[in-house]
Amino acid sequence: MSEIFYSKENLHFLLNGVFDISELCKLGRYNHHTTEGFDMMLEAADSLATKHLRPILMEMDRNPPQLVNGKITVHPAMRSLMKKFGDDGWISMSAPQEHGGLHAPFTLLQAVGFIFAAANYSTMAYPFLSNGAAHLIESFATKDLQQQFIPKIYSGEWQGTMALTEPEAGSSLSDIVTTAEKTASGHYLIKGQKIFISCGDHDACDNVVHLMLARIKGAPAGTKGISLFVVPQKRIDASGSLVSNDVSTAGLFHKMGYHGAPIAHLIMGEKEDCHGYLVGEEHKGLSYMFQMMNEARIGVGMSAVAIASAAYYHSLQYTKVRKQGRKITDKDPVKPQTEIINHADVKRMLLFQKSIVEGSLSLCMQSTWYFDMWKATVGEEKEKYFLLLEILTPIVKSYPAEMSIQTTSAALQCFGGYGFTKDFMAELFFRETRIHTLHEGTTAIHGMDLLGRKVTMQNGKAVQLLLREIAEDMKRAAQHQLLQPYVSSLKSVLNDLQQTTFELLAKAQSKGAEVFLSDATLYLEAFGIVCVAWQWLKQCASANEKLAASSAAYSQEFLKSKQHACGYYFEYELPKTVYLLQRLRSKNNITVATAAEEIV
Amino acid sequence: MSEIFYSKENLHFLLNGVFDISELCKLGRYNHHTTEGFDMMLEAADSLATKHLRPILMEMDRNPPQLVNGKITVHPAMRSLMKKFGDDGWISMSAPQEHGGLHAPFTLLQAVGFIFAAANYSTMAYPFLSNGAAHLIESFATKDLQQQFIPKIYSGEWQGTMALTEPEAGSSLSDIVTTAEKTASGHYLIKGQKIFISCGDHDACDNVVHLMLARIKGAPAGTKGISLFVVPQKRIDASGSLVSNDVSTAGLFHKMGYHGAPIAHLIMGEKEDCHGYLVGEEHKGLSYMFQMMNEARIGVGMSAVAIASAAYYHSLQYTKVRKQGRKITDKDPVKPQTEIINHADVKRMLLFQKSIVEGSLSLCMQSTWYFDMWKATVGEEKEKYFLLLEILTPIVKSYPAEMSIQTTSAALQCFGGYGFTKDFMAELFFRETRIHTLHEGTTAIHGMDLLGRKVTMQNGKAVQLLLREIAEDMKRAAQHQLLQPYVSSLKSVLNDLQQTTFELLAKAQSKGAEVFLSDATLYLEAFGIVCVAWQWLKQCASANEKLAASSAAYSQEFLKSKQHACGYYFEYELPKTVYLLQRLRSKNNITVATAAEEIV
Repeated sequence: MSEIFYSKENLHFLLNGVFDISELCKLGRYNHHTTEGFDMMLEAADSLATKHLRPILMEMDRNPPQLVNGKITVHPAMRSLMKKFGDDGWISMSAPQEHGGLHAPFTLLQAVGFIFAAANYSTMAYPFLSNGAAHLIESFATKDLQQQFIPKIYSGEWQGTMALTEPEAGSSLSDIVTTAEKTASGHYLIKGQKIFISCGDHDACDNVVHLMLARIKGAPAGTKGISLFVVPQKRIDASGSLVSNDVSTAGLFHKMGYHGAPIAHLIMGEKEDCHGYLVGEEHKGLSYMFQMMNEARIGVGMSAVAIASAAYYHSLQYTKVRKQGRKITDKDPVKPQTEIINHADVKRMLLFQKSIVEGSLSLCMQSTWYFDMWKATVGEEKEKYFLLLEILTPIVKSYPAEMSIQTTSAALQCFGGYGFTKDFMAELFFRETRIHTLHEGTTAIHGMDLLGRKVTMQNGKAVQLLLREIAEDMKRAAQHQLLQPYVSSLKSVLNDLQQTTFELLAKAQSKGAEVFLSDATLYLEAFGIVCVAWQWLKQCASANEKLAASSAAYSQEFLKSKQHACGYYFEYELPKTVYLLQRLRSKNNITVATAAEEIV
Repeated sequence: MSEIFYSKENLHFLLNGVFDISELCKLGRYNHHTTEGFDMMLEAADSLATKHLRPILMEMDRNPPQLVNGKITVHPAMRSLMKKFGDDGWISMSAPQEHGGLHAPFTLLQAVGFIFAAANYSTMAYPFLSNGAAHLIESFATKDLQQQFIPKIYSGEWQGTMALTEPEAGSSLSDIVTTAEKTASGHYLIKGQKIFISCGDHDACDNVVHLMLARIKGAPAGTKGISLFVVPQKRIDASGSLVSNDVSTAGLFHKMGYHGAPIAHLIMGEKEDCHGYLVGEEHKGLSYMFQMMNEARIGVGMSAVAIASAAYYHSLQYTKVRKQGRKITDKDPVKPQTEIINHADVKRMLLFQKSIVEGSLSLCMQSTWYFDMWKATVGEEKEKYFLLLEILTPIVKSYPAEMSIQTTSAALQCFGGYGFTKDFMAELFFRETRIHTLHEGTTAIHGMDLLGRKVTMQNGKAVQLLLREIAEDMKRAAQHQLLQPYVSSLKSVLNDLQQTTFELLAKAQSKGAEVFLSDATLYLEAFGIVCVAWQWLKQCASANEKLAASSAAYSQEFLKSKQHACGYYFEYELPKTVYLLQRLRSKNNITVATAAEEIV
C-alpha cells in the first residue's frame, strides 16, 4: 500500500479552482511569478516530502531526541535535510530577492508547509521556524544583524527559533522575567530561562539563533515592557570565530508525539556572558513578535490539517482493502466478507474526516490569500485584507487544531483494534496532532482573542467585512440548485450568530467582561463551523461548475466527492452551531458562578 | 501533590446515597452481606490501589511487555500482585462460596474494578479477566473442568482470558475459522490463530487458561456453528504434571497505551497437539460467551470512567496550584498571578470532566444495580431487570468510552503546553483510554446493537421499562425547585427521542435496514446523553435532600459541587441531543447514498 498523505488533486483544485493563484501573479508584488513556476515548486516539495521526509517518520517517532552532555541530538538525517532545505531554497522561499529568496507568496509557502507537515510534521518545524525567525530579523533588525544572521539561517547552517515561553509565563506573556541589561558596547546581557523552545538546540545545525523576548532592566511591567532580541547560541567574536554565547540547554521535554523535533529548556547568562542584540526599539518587542506569531498561528492550522490529512488517507486506503463483516442487507455467512468502506458508519467516519480536512484546508488558504492581498495592496484595500486576516487568524489557528483531535481519532477508529496498535500509523497521527491546541496560544486564548478583540475591533468592521465576503460566495452558490438548501441553512445560522454576538455584547455591558468571555471557546467553535461551511459552498460551487462544464482537469470522482463531503458538512457539522449558540445565549453563567472551592 | 485518582466521597455517595446498597443485603442472594462489610472491601481495595497499583503506573507505561524467546515478560511486580489478587480474594470476590468466593454483588465487584482501574488500568485487567473466565467455567462447564481450572485461576496462579478475535474475525465473529476436532478421548484438537488476546501470555502466572471460541469440524457456517472451549496454555497430563498444550505466542502487539498488560497473538495446534475441552453444548458457544462479554462490556464502561476520573483529579489538583494570568476583570501586571482554576474556561473544562465522570459512573452503577436485581429476583421482576440491563449495556459500554477520549483531552488541555509532555500523566491517560471504543465491540457495533436489537426487542418492552424508570426519577426530581427546569428539558428531549425512534422504525420499513441503522452511532450518543442526564437528576435530587437535611455524611462543598456539575450537564451536554436527533430525522441518507468510489 503506497503511502498517500495528501491529495495533489485537491491541493491543485484549491489553489487554482477555488482560489485563483494566477491572480496573485498579476499583482506588482508577485508579478515575477507564474502558475507554472508555482506548480514546479509544489512538485519539488512533493518529491522532497515523498522521498526524504515520509520515509523517516516512523523512525523519528520511535527514536526521539536525546539530551547527551548538555547537547540535544536528533535523527541523523536532519543534518542533511537542513542543508537540503537551505540549498534548495525552501527556508528562504518567501524572502525578498535581496536576501536570496524567491519572494514567493505566503499562500505558496504555506502550501509547501502543508505538504511537508503531511509527510512528517516534525521535519517541517525546523525550516519553518527558521523562515519565521529570519523574516523577523529582515523586517525589524539592523542591516548589521541582517548580514550576520540571515544568510546562515537561510542556508540551513543555523537554526532560527522563537523564544517566548518561560516557566511562569506561558499564556501570560506579560509575566516574562528574562532580563536584558544594556552594556557600553551596545549589546545587552541576557539572563533568564525559556521553556518549550522548538528546535531550541540540536545537532543538525551549527548554531541556533533565538528571537527572544526579554525585559530591559527598569522597563514597565506587563506587555509594554517587553523587548525583542536576537540571542544566538554561539556568537561571532571579534576575530570572526564562533564562540559560546552562554546559552545552555538545561533540559529536553519528552513528549507524547512530534518526536522528530526537540523542545528545549534553555538557560541564558549563567556565566553573565549571554549577549543579546536588540531588534527594533526598546519595549516594542511584543508587537514585532506578533508578526512571527501570526504567521506561526496560520502554520499551526495548516499543520493540524496536514496531520489530519495524513490520517485520513491512511484510513481511507485501509478501509478500501480491509474486509470485515457483510452488508446489513445480506448477512449470509457463506458469502465473502466486504471491504469495510461499504459499511455506513465507516463511510460516516471517512466523510467526517474529508469534510473537516478539505474544509479546513480551504479556510487556511482563505487566510493566506488575505495575507498575500494585504501585502500586495495599498490604502483602503490593504486595510480591508488586514482586518479579514485579523479576524480569521484565531479561527484558522484553532478550528483545525481542535477538529484534528477528532478526525485523527476517527481515522484510528476505522482500523478497529489495530488502530490502538503500532502496526499502523493511526495512533501516531492521533498523538502527533495533540500539540496544536496548545502551542501558539491555547484554544481558550484564541477564543478570547476572537470575541474579546477581533469581533469588537473598529466597531465590528472586521466582522462586517467577513460577512460581506461570505454573502458574495453565498450568492454564487445559490445559483446551483443542489446548494440552495445549504445556502439557506448557512444564512439562518449566520443570522443566529449575529444575534448571539449582539446579545453577548449586551452581556458585556450588563454583566461584565468575565461573563461576556466565559464561553468564548464555544463562540470560537461556532464561528469556525460557519467559516468552514462557507468554504464548502465555495468549493462545491466550483466543483459543480467544473462538473457541468465536463472539465477534464479533475476526475469525476473527485468532483463528486466534493458534493458528498459538502453535503456531509451541512448535514452533520453545521447543525452543531445550534447547541453552541443556544448555550452562548443562555442566561445561566454557570462557570463564572461556580466557586473554585465547589469544584471537587 | 498527593495523587488522588478517584473520589471516595463520591463513590460512597453513589453506593449509599443514590443507589442504596443496603437494599441488596436484604435480598436472599446477598443477605450474607452487610454494608459494613462492603465498606471494608472498598477500604481494602483503596489500600491495595494506593499502595501497590498506582505507584507502578508510570514504570509500567515506560516499560511495556516484551516478547523474549516466545514468552511475554511483563512488569516484575505483576507476579506478586497476581498472588495478592488471589490470596486476598479479589479474583474470586463475586464467586459463590462453594468456589471459595464471597459471592459479592456485581455492583461491589465493579466498584472495586473502578478503584483498581483508576489507579492503574492495566493491572486491573489481569484479575478481572480471570474472574470472568472462571465465572464462565463455573456457569457452563463440567464439574471436572471446574475442579481442574477454577481454584488455580481464583488463587492467581493461573491467568484466565477470553479468546474470540482472529485476524479475519474481529467485529464479525461469525467468521471465526479456528477449528476443533473431536478425539476418541473426549477432548478436541484445536487449530487456528487468535489475536488481541489480553493477558494471553505472560510470566506473572504459571499457566494461562483461554476461554476460546472455535468451530467444530462440520459445524454450520456463521454464529450458529461456534462452540466454546477451555484451552489452557499448559495442560495436566496423565501423571498430573503440567505440560505444553501446543499454544504458542506468535506475537505481542505494541500499543499506544495500556502498556502494563500484554496483548498476544496466539497460535494453537502447530504440532497438532492442542487440547480443547468443550464447555456446555456444541454450537452454543457464542451464547455462553455473551455472559463474559456482557460483564466485560460493563467493565469497559467502568474502566473508561476510571481513567477519566484519574485524569480529572490530576487536572483538578494542578489547576488549583498552577498560577498563570489574572482575572479578566483585573489584569494589572504588577499584581500576582492567579490559580488557573479561577479562569472561566478552565472551570468549564473541569465541570465538563466532572459531569461526564460522575454522570457516567452513576449510569454504570445503574446497570450493575439492574444486574444484581436480575440475579436476585425471579419471574416477571427478573425479566424486567434483564431487559433493563440489556438496553443499558451498549450505552454503558460506549458512552463513557467515547466521552473519556474527550474528557482526558480536556484534562490534558488544562496543563497547557505541559499537557503534551511526559512531565505529567495527562498524556498517559489520554493514550490509555483510547482502547475503550475499540475492544469488546466498537462503538458502531453497539450503536447497531442498541437500535437494531435492543430497542426493538419484545416490541420495545425494554425501552418502555427504561422510560418508566426515568419517569419515576423525574417525578422525584421535580419536587426540587432547582431541578424543575432540568426535568422539563429532559422531558422534552425524551419526547424527541421517542418521536425520532418512531420515525427511524418507519424508515426501517420504507427504506430498509441499511438506512435505518446508518446513523446508529449518533442514536447511541443521543440515548447515552439522555441516560446520563437522568442519572444527574437522581444524583442532584439526593444531594439536595442531603443539603436540606444538613446531612453530616458529606461535605457541603461536595453536595454543592453536585449541583454545579448537574447544571453544567443540562446546560452544555443535554442540548447536544438537539443536533443529533435533527440529523437522525433528516431525510438525507448521505452515507448510504455515497458510493465508496466517490470517497477520495
